[in-house]
Amino acid sequence: MPRKQKEIRTDIGWSDASSITLFGKDFTNEILGHVNLGDMGFMELTGRVPTPAESRMFNAMTVTLVEHGITPSALAARMTYLGAPESLQAAVAAGLNGLGTVFVGSMEGAAKMLREAMPEPDAQADFAALAAPVVESFRQQKRIIPGLGHPFHKPIDPRTPRLLGLAKENGFYGPYVQLMEAIAVEAGRASGKVLPMNATGAVGALCAEMGFDWKICRGLGVMARAVGLVGHILEESRRPMAQEIWHRVEDVATAHMRPPQENE
Amino acid sequence: MPRKQKEIRTDIGWSDASSITLFGKDFTNEILGHVNLGDMGFMELTGRVPTPAESRMFNAMTVTLVEHGITPSALAARMTYLGAPESLQAAVAAGLNGLGTVFVGSMEGAAKMLREAMPEPDAQADFAALAAPVVESFRQQKRIIPGLGHPFHKPIDPRTPRLLGLAKENGFYGPYVQLMEAIAVEAGRASGKVLPMNATGAVGALCAEMGFDWKICRGLGVMARAVGLVGHILEESRRPMAQEIWHRVEDVATAHMRPPQENE
Amino acid sequence: MPRKQKEIRTDIGWSDASSITLFGKDFTNEILGHVNLGDMGFMELTGRVPTPAESRMFNAMTVTLVEHGITPSALAARMTYLGAPESLQAAVAAGLNGLGTVFVGSMEGAAKMLREAMPEPDAQADFAALAAPVVESFRQQKRIIPGLGHPFHKPIDPRTPRLLGLAKENGFYGPYVQLMEAIAVEAGRASGKVLPMNATGAVGALCAEMGFDWKICRGLGVMARAVGLVGHILEESRRPMAQEIWHRVEDVATAHMRPPQENE
Amino acid sequence: MPRKQKEIRTDIGWSDASSITLFGKDFTNEILGHVNLGDMGFMELTGRVPTPAESRMFNAMTVTLVEHGITPSALAARMTYLGAPESLQAAVAAGLNGLGTVFVGSMEGAAKMLREAMPEPDAQADFAALAAPVVESFRQQKRIIPGLGHPFHKPIDPRTPRLLGLAKENGFYGPYVQLMEAIAVEAGRASGKVLPMNATGAVGALCAEMGFDWKICRGLGVMARAVGLVGHILEESRRPMAQEIWHRVEDVATAHMRPPQENE
Repeated sequence: MPRKQKEIRTDIGWSDASSITLFGKDFTNEILGHVNLGDMGFMELTGRVPTPAESRMFNAMTVTLVEHGITPSALAARMTYLGAPESLQAAVAAGLNGLGTVFVGSMEGAAKMLREAMPEPDAQADFAALAAPVVESFRQQKRIIPGLGHPFHKPIDPRTPRLLGLAKENGFYGPYVQLMEAIAVEAGRASGKVLPMNATGAVGALCAEMGFDWKICRGLGVMARAVGLVGHILEESRRPMAQEIWHRVEDVATAHMRPPQENE
Repeated sequence: MPRKQKEIRTDIGWSDASSITLFGKDFTNEILGHVNLGDMGFMELTGRVPTPAESRMFNAMTVTLVEHGITPSALAARMTYLGAPESLQAAVAAGLNGLGTVFVGSMEGAAKMLREAMPEPDAQADFAALAAPVVESFRQQKRIIPGLGHPFHKPIDPRTPRLLGLAKENGFYGPYVQLMEAIAVEAGRASGKVLPMNATGAVGALCAEMGFDWKICRGLGVMARAVGLVGHILEESRRPMAQEIWHRVEDVATAHMRPPQENE
Repeated sequence: MPRKQKEIRTDIGWSDASSITLFGKDFTNEILGHVNLGDMGFMELTGRVPTPAESRMFNAMTVTLVEHGITPSALAARMTYLGAPESLQAAVAAGLNGLGTVFVGSMEGAAKMLREAMPEPDAQADFAALAAPVVESFRQQKRIIPGLGHPFHKPIDPRTPRLLGLAKENGFYGPYVQLMEAIAVEAGRASGKVLPMNATGAVGALCAEMGFDWKICRGLGVMARAVGLVGHILEESRRPMAQEIWHRVEDVATAHMRPPQENE
Repeated sequence: MPRKQKEIRTDIGWSDASSITLFGKDFTNEILGHVNLGDMGFMELTGRVPTPAESRMFNAMTVTLVEHGITPSALAARMTYLGAPESLQAAVAAGLNGLGTVFVGSMEGAAKMLREAMPEPDAQADFAALAAPVVESFRQQKRIIPGLGHPFHKPIDPRTPRLLGLAKENGFYGPYVQLMEAIAVEAGRASGKVLPMNATGAVGALCAEMGFDWKICRGLGVMARAVGLVGHILEESRRPMAQEIWHRVEDVATAHMRPPQENE
């Protein structure tokens, strides 16, 4: 019995000899020169051009995630560039490969947590009442609540008030952001620690606010970090550090195996 | 003799408990909410905030490269997502890995060709005179001139006049763009074929115009395509095609090895 | 307060001007020429040279996973090579990126399931009694039991009896393999379907048998598939299919958006 | 005019419900349990089972390339694993992405150089006469001759005499290896430095000896390193170093930007 074929279909776009259509628009005349790179990201996620408020908010969310200086992701990219300087794209890709559960997971986790606690946005909800069982459930399972606290930015992540201010200015200070705030308050109360919303918590809440599927939130981090990693490769090409890091690590990591005279 | 240590240094940025400094600016107050994602890309390449004209031009250049519908890069990303849907970042990375000499090489090649023909921008140059030996050299070596012609967009790539129009509006219709135009004219004359500047040729020339090192031009394509690939993964998650493509290819590609009765 | 430094240490190996030490052995004289590539894989996982029986078993386990013809992983590698033929390594890496939960997850899942049901190997265990609650638990959670059944190889995966035969010959037909068999029997009884152990179930059980941490089982698939993907890239370089697949998919996937006359 | 379709075809293998055919053989009964992992690599490159001599030689060549302790490639993999421990495959892929011109290029370059100097193997050739213009040409172009000298293993790479010994034992001490030796002698004479064949030079010469296309030589390194990188990920999961490296590098690399009191 032959296999039944399924449909192969894209709705993103198509081209012919004289035109390119993307998301139902004439790319050349209606998109190119009218939108910025972040807006293109918004279009990729929604299929439509953002409103001015959406454009400002979405660009701020992705700009938040572009660059954090020396990160494991940047180091992986720089190590890769050291071996394959002819493949800049492979160095960026190596850096992106590490954007998994540890670093971008909290953004995704925050969006998921909020969506599960409040499947549809409800501006009239009692956020404190919704927050309590969420915090209780995480505490019972001894799981860290995503999007709260920061190992380094203390007492607060400086990006959070800025993002929330932009949310207010642009009409995105809605029920998911408020629920995230309520969860932060409740988590602080229950633990006795200061656990303010961090930047990934804010971006995750804003992803929920904008109606993005939580599974794709990680995509904002991926888009953004690709931009930042190109900058690290450029710096590595001008002021390299990867080789020196390698040699220092090798020296330190193998010292216990080397004969004593070598270390003298 | 102990190894002499070299410096390990970044100038991109640093953080402390209450602030994040990027490219010498206070990220939270001077960058976040003030720039868009493309502007962050410009900052990664230059270390400074773009002027309004630079912002419009750079965003247009990257927007040009975000999305081309079904491409080998998008298919690699979708195939990867089929096996590892928990690792969106790895699917995007797989798609980026293919942005090598074949697809983004012409952008890089155009920028390199222009820089080599005119190491410093010279608005008074005789562009036709500069173009002639470039075209002659490529023809003698039987190499394709990067950034001219298009396998599909004929007679002209619709994005090119739009990009050149934006260049004129924003003050980037300078000597490298004009040299690229002169090379296109000369290449057409020498070959007897219509060989207009394509979109990657225009972006490559604009990279030269903006003073970017040709080695980093590929980075614009990498930044941009990461944005587009997230959209492909989102569509794949909603309307999958990778599995069906796989099965169809497997059927076709192995048919010659299968016993006859299987194909009846 | 300065950060307290942690140790940076490797025990894998070190070199000096005249020697290379790996896993405590003189690589040049004690390893090179004495072991095969699979044995090196065994050494990477255990830190020691395998016994002859371990060598035969481990090589068979990895050989099982090298090559499955046209797979999504092979297609991702070929698509990547189309764009970046100068970066063979990046094409293989793109193919590896898809070895996630869907394709190699069942191997890992089987090893984990067995380890959790029987934390220490017990040759005297009542395997049927251990199997019953495992199957019950998966059925209650409506989760698929990893390592059983096959979408295509029916009624049995031909590799399984071969792997089990090799396990018997080499002394690895132990409690974990027997527990996996008991789980297959119990799953078949409970579901009323034929659910024999598949090849990834067999390899997963053998990973448990050999004492490997279930978290590293996926590594056998990664090692093996890297070998196979090089073969696909070689074939792609000689008899390309990626470009033709791309064009066919693009035609089919965008047909619904094109004006009617284009399809006539 | 509709596009003319090209063939989509693989000769690697196919499966049906009860059998798997690879390279024309019944995988289950003729390959599995009969060959080792390195032999599968040989089959991927040649389509046939190696002879015992070929098996020993090819396994030795790949074993040479598996593991070099702390390398940039291993560090990229470890940095990636730190961020995405759920995606072991992506960590290995990140490590492979760096196997470009700098580290495996010399193997490929040696094979290419030998093939170009002696397109067909000729056991009666005057190797010194063939070597002279090769060395002269590299010197004139101020290019480094691939496969000679070593930054660290001095005066000789200990792996080279072992590989050449294995080549003699197994019948692969042929014209390409001898030409490589002649090139080393000539390069030493012309430069006045000691420039013995290194391990990648030996493997590259043996690739030529075995008849492999030089473009695929890099594949031996990719196969082999995938095996080694799994070992580094296992060690990283047990004795992590990536996080500590990250913090140390960040401290050092950003110290010049921090206010003085922070460093006190």
